[in-house]
Amino acid sequence: MARKLNVAIVGATGVVGSIMRRLIAEERGNWGEVRLIASARSAGKILSVGDENLEVQAISAEAFDGIDIAHFDLPDEVSAEWVPVAAAKGVVVIDKSAHYRMDPDVPLVVREANPGEARNRPKGIIANANCTTLALIPSLAALNAEFGLVSMSVASYQAASGSGKEGLEALYAQLQKIAGIDGLGTAGNDVRMVLGEEFNAPFGAPLALNVVPKIGGWKDDGWTSEELKVRNESRKILGLPDLKVASTCVRVPVAVGHSQVVHATFEREVTVAEAHRVLAAAEGVDLVDDPANMVFPMPIDSAGKGGTQVGRIRQSLDFPNSLEFFVVGDNLMKGAALNSIETADLVRRELEAEA
Amino acid sequence: MARKLNVAIVGATGVVGSIMRRLIAEERGNWGEVRLIASARSAGKILSVGDENLEVQAISAEAFDGIDIAHFDLPDEVSAEWVPVAAAKGVVVIDKSAHYRMDPDVPLVVREANPGEARNRPKGIIANANCTTLALIPSLAALNAEFGLVSMSVASYQAASGSGKEGLEALYAQLQKIAGIDGLGTAGNDVRMVLGEEFNAPFGAPLALNVVPKIGGWKDDGWTSEELKVRNESRKILGLPDLKVASTCVRVPVAVGHSQVVHATFEREVTVAEAHRVLAAAEGVDLVDDPANMVFPMPIDSAGKGGTQVGRIRQSLDFPNSLEFFVVGDNLMKGAALNSIETADLVRRELEAEA
Repeated sequence: MARKLNVAIVGATGVVGSIMRRLIAEERGNWGEVRLIASARSAGKILSVGDENLEVQAISAEAFDGIDIAHFDLPDEVSAEWVPVAAAKGVVVIDKSAHYRMDPDVPLVVREANPGEARNRPKGIIANANCTTLALIPSLAALNAEFGLVSMSVASYQAASGSGKEGLEALYAQLQKIAGIDGLGTAGNDVRMVLGEEFNAPFGAPLALNVVPKIGGWKDDGWTSEELKVRNESRKILGLPDLKVASTCVRVPVAVGHSQVVHATFEREVTVAEAHRVLAAAEGVDLVDDPANMVFPMPIDSAGKGGTQVGRIRQSLDFPNSLEFFVVGDNLMKGAALNSIETADLVRRELEAEA
Repeated sequence: MARKLNVAIVGATGVVGSIMRRLIAEERGNWGEVRLIASARSAGKILSVGDENLEVQAISAEAFDGIDIAHFDLPDEVSAEWVPVAAAKGVVVIDKSAHYRMDPDVPLVVREANPGEARNRPKGIIANANCTTLALIPSLAALNAEFGLVSMSVASYQAASGSGKEGLEALYAQLQKIAGIDGLGTAGNDVRMVLGEEFNAPFGAPLALNVVPKIGGWKDDGWTSEELKVRNESRKILGLPDLKVASTCVRVPVAVGHSQVVHATFEREVTVAEAHRVLAAAEGVDLVDDPANMVFPMPIDSAGKGGTQVGRIRQSLDFPNSLEFFVVGDNLMKGAALNSIETADLVRRELEAEA
């Protein structure tokens, strides 16, 4: 047998980084060296991967010596700087930033939709999709394969951890401050007044007892970057460049788990029974749909799970060939760390088979 | 001038009842007697209407003697019993329950959409629509009048106070219990475990750090009563019996303010500028749409307001003649108390003009 491949986690110190380390530890036997890389600020820190305590290395060209596959989880502009450095050394990079996702020479891979694309990486780079898109794809890919997806209208309910540690800590701090104050949000007792300006970061407004219909930056014509990602990344991953998408992205006071209401229209008629059959057999999908027994997907039940949950499936009353449903995915798992791990697994098997 | 009309608030003790009393106090000069009526359990209680302290009377046929207009805010089955008793005595009843809303002989009146229907009340009963529907109608009515509404796909973000005092208290109790516990909802620290079974009421699951995609009771084919109300009541109020509606209703951990993501398609092309022009001039609508300055509707800013807020208006990228937008309405104000007050105002003016 050939040597085991070496893997790096770049951006190992964040919320997603800690899940990356846990997931790599679970498949530790598949890898030779596991290397942790982060900004110079975190260099020297000791972090665990299963039983091993590893020293974080400062990012540099040399830090990638001997690495075969690197998971990148860095801000867009930092990925733009360092991904090419690693790729130039022959490392296969799986990048979680938005920077390369729409690059025609970079595949955007989701195992359940387009696993074959992982081999088609002229730049040595594979992109990992946005967390909201990733929660949708396993269900959509399965339904599309069977019924032909034509259009979808999507509304999201996104968790604070989508903004990382800073988002989670802001939500907990706000909840702690308002806890026990009755009548908040009613006319005489104002959430903004209680929380003050200090809690406008990082969501642009308080999130406790609120929902904030703005995620990411502002783009042309009133769209947010997050809404355009859902549209453009879904089209690319599903291989449907003309897919019609309406997307509105909203932050909600949830810790972990991005939920979405989906109204989807297909080429062919779809009954609930047919959708159940297809989704029950679909990879990466947990069918959670038994209303009479109060069984439907919710973020508190999705946290930590690898699959995406789908339920509340109904045949549209007024739209032909259409379904309504509700999907939830752990934004730190399938929405970030797990999808990157699954893509690395495709690449690892390919490289091992070639060796 | 003729005598002033007498008004009753039936169900005066709840969350909505307290807002009814405040709103009636604000227009106290329009009315002769104001009478508070509730179940026998609350009879004898003293409640204020502005400066007046009034004794709550137990509901009975005699309790309606001399009353011209009565606002009912009672559970469906209690309204079904008592509304006809009041109507038989010549009282014009404005009923907030769901019981009469779809009765073809009962108009479902929203001032901004169909004020003339208030006169067409063969049973002496006018119904007040569901809180979720009411948040939508002012914007939809204005856009429909100008561009012809053909279809809509709606996802809701509904506040705990939609379940009244019980809902609000449950949310506050849950928030108090979880406040200060970091990492909740992440894999190792489970919201369900911390809150336990006791917090499944009244939403069917914990609401803190969660969203619950089930509001109301289960109906055929996986729909909830709330989702069917949004469809059927919107059709009736807008006078569009063939309007295509897709609705999914979701409870979120917000105290007050029902938000909704709307994808709407019209007969004619609609630009954002045209939508702004129409909505800025529309009754009952606050146009809150200046993304660059972080101005968009949110529940914490809607609490206590009479208007419904609309913003995040975008022309659909892939659907002709379509808009995406976000609406928020205080579910206790326009969503309940205020709409009933506005309908009573139409009836009062009609009766005074006849006198």
